Amino acid sequence: MVNQRMLQYGSVRSAIRDLSEYGNKRRAEIGRHDVFDYSLGNPSIPAPDKVAEELKLLAETVDPVALHGYTSAAGDVNVRKKMIRDINIRYETDLTVDDIYLTCGAASSLAITLNALTEPGDEFVAIAPFFAEYKVFTEAAGAKFVICEADTEHFMIDFDHLEEAVNENTKGIIINYPNNPTGVIPDKQCLESLAAFLEYVSKSYGHPVFLISDEPYRELNYEYKYLPYFTNLYAHTIVCYSFSKALSLPGERIGYVVVSNKFDGHEDVYAAVCGAGRAMGYVCAPSTMQRVVSQCMNVSADLEIYKKNRDILYNSLKQMGYDCTYPDGAFYLFVKSPLESADEFSELAKKYELLIVPSDSFGINGYVRLAYCVPTEMIERSLPAFQALKEEADKIIADRKH
Amino acid sequence: MVNQRMLQYGSVRSAIRDLSEYGNKRRAEIGRHDVFDYSLGNPSIPAPDKVAEELKLLAETVDPVALHGYTSAAGDVNVRKKMIRDINIRYETDLTVDDIYLTCGAASSLAITLNALTEPGDEFVAIAPFFAEYKVFTEAAGAKFVICEADTEHFMIDFDHLEEAVNENTKGIIINYPNNPTGVIPDKQCLESLAAFLEYVSKSYGHPVFLISDEPYRELNYEYKYLPYFTNLYAHTIVCYSFSKALSLPGERIGYVVVSNKFDGHEDVYAAVCGAGRAMGYVCAPSTMQRVVSQCMNVSADLEIYKKNRDILYNSLKQMGYDCTYPDGAFYLFVKSPLESADEFSELAKKYELLIVPSDSFGINGYVRLAYCVPTEMIERSLPAFQALKEEADKIIADRKH
Repeated sequence: MVNQRMLQYGSVRSAIRDLSEYGNKRRAEIGRHDVFDYSLGNPSIPAPDKVAEELKLLAETVDPVALHGYTSAAGDVNVRKKMIRDINIRYETDLTVDDIYLTCGAASSLAITLNALTEPGDEFVAIAPFFAEYKVFTEAAGAKFVICEADTEHFMIDFDHLEEAVNENTKGIIINYPNNPTGVIPDKQCLESLAAFLEYVSKSYGHPVFLISDEPYRELNYEYKYLPYFTNLYAHTIVCYSFSKALSLPGERIGYVVVSNKFDGHEDVYAAVCGAGRAMGYVCAPSTMQRVVSQCMNVSADLEIYKKNRDILYNSLKQMGYDCTYPDGAFYLFVKSPLESADEFSELAKKYELLIVPSDSFGINGYVRLAYCVPTEMIERSLPAFQALKEEADKIIADRKH
Repeated sequence: MVNQRMLQYGSVRSAIRDLSEYGNKRRAEIGRHDVFDYSLGNPSIPAPDKVAEELKLLAETVDPVALHGYTSAAGDVNVRKKMIRDINIRYETDLTVDDIYLTCGAASSLAITLNALTEPGDEFVAIAPFFAEYKVFTEAAGAKFVICEADTEHFMIDFDHLEEAVNENTKGIIINYPNNPTGVIPDKQCLESLAAFLEYVSKSYGHPVFLISDEPYRELNYEYKYLPYFTNLYAHTIVCYSFSKALSLPGERIGYVVVSNKFDGHEDVYAAVCGAGRAMGYVCAPSTMQRVVSQCMNVSADLEIYKKNRDILYNSLKQMGYDCTYPDGAFYLFVKSPLESADEFSELAKKYELLIVPSDSFGINGYVRLAYCVPTEMIERSLPAFQALKEEADKIIADRKH
């Protein structure tokens, strides 16, 4: 009666959702205070005050027919002008209003981009670990989803694995830095090698291999580590951006696609993005929120709170003997599961009311992800639980050795 | 380099967009006052004051983390409760919060529904004349788009044509009442016959044929003509609703899908809708606007203005000798082109600065659509132009007869 793939997407809950629902249940049972829920990447800090101010100002001063009316499919032209001006100044690009297409957030940016690019037989490569929805978006667009195995040493890019993953059918590579679930931003050399690799394979296969950069966490870069605007590094780049995290507006669904203007035929790629948006029922990005974010390009939520959370959690868990990846940004800590099975470890953690996501759905086994976009005091209160969990895991390992 | 269908959707402008762009050009050339632009179905009356009041109230009083945070994929549960309560009271349905899925407007409701339902080989039938984007949404979902030829007498449904259009591959029929582009609401007998027809073909083919009701204009029903909530008329119904027109919020992208709960397996259809939304990158409907519309279920924009516009335009054009279809609702007037070619007539109209859309893209030739969601005074000022246009058209016809 229905499309079986869509039924599956709508019926099979992700590990993250499952754990989060378990958290709701536990909170109802034992109280909010005693559940240490690290399951969801849901921003916990408020939007900057300017968001509420702009909302009120727009509601009070702008003609509602203009404020709530359809904008151009690509977004209001004045909003796009403001955004492009900001991007060009910030990243030394020379983009125009005809290179940016406003969307309902990074998820829609990605889904639209993948639908715009996919021709029969196409494959897209994601570098593990990756945000699990990439597989859903890619397969729904009709392309094959290919995993490039993780660099488990630094969680940057293992180019031997990347070479194995790429072939003549590869249409693009999806990257996501700062990364969900590791928080890592690869170093400059790694990113430049990626650009060189893409140049090389594009030439070898006689067609461009696109770099699709998923950037909801761009501003969550705590030590201001080198993170280029990728159109400057590699011509065939498409940037999928969201304001969700920088401005703490995840529910408002506002972001953009930027198609680099540095390659021949970029106008066609942009047109295909517009066409895919149209065909998928995206008429325009929400009109009031377009204006709000365009007025908030130079403010952000108080991201220092996440940095503080990171420092406390990372340092404490390291001290307890956990094997943690240092997160340059985003709001995730990726921890090697002391037990061989991350599922078992995640289950064990529930005993201590710690909700941590096993890594399987991120394309790698044996790790857990902790989303630290939570109140700092919750992190502090949870530390004894992590200590006890580690001790129990160590005991299990020791017992099993005997 | 890109998907050719998406490139085409993004490159080939619709007749409506083309004409609207021409209007922008003419306004720049001769001034806003002298262009009579009937091209776009863009609401011209302001949102009710309560929208601005609610926006301000929410911005002032609600914790921004809650206000701007992710909601459930189907929409905030309290918002869904409010909407369902309103629908159940208004239409005597017994829907639950698990039958409604909030969307980014009617276009996304339709695109999501078509993606949820489509299995290989499926066909969807639209009854001409129809909103041109149905073809785009249907084909992008991977189904075949089939046109049921128009009932040119009453613009209701010609069941002989419908029988021709339907076969064992038909998954659903898309209806849209009040209709874009005619404004017609079929009479009760016609709608009941449609339900009976659907029961019959579903039984004949051994699988349900869905009724997909696209309802952005439901409240624009000027004489309160009988218009059932279609789940009450036919079990296998999916309602695609938008708040765009009733509340004059087209740019905000907010609407819903309701899956009837009156048939076996409705839970699977609802799950597939959720799955399609997910796979197409719709994470949730815009969170603040979810709350705003749920507080505005019992208000509407001042729709009487459209009724006044309809009366002036319909009566005046009838008096001039135009052959017009009486619009029960929506904000469109469908007029038979005096010239055989509606394209030629639409071109001729430009001479009088009248921008009216030829009907070809609505699945029927020989008509023009006038969107009267415009200032009343523009309609009044445009009447001499319509008179002159009619006279010139009559003269052309007379000349050609000789």
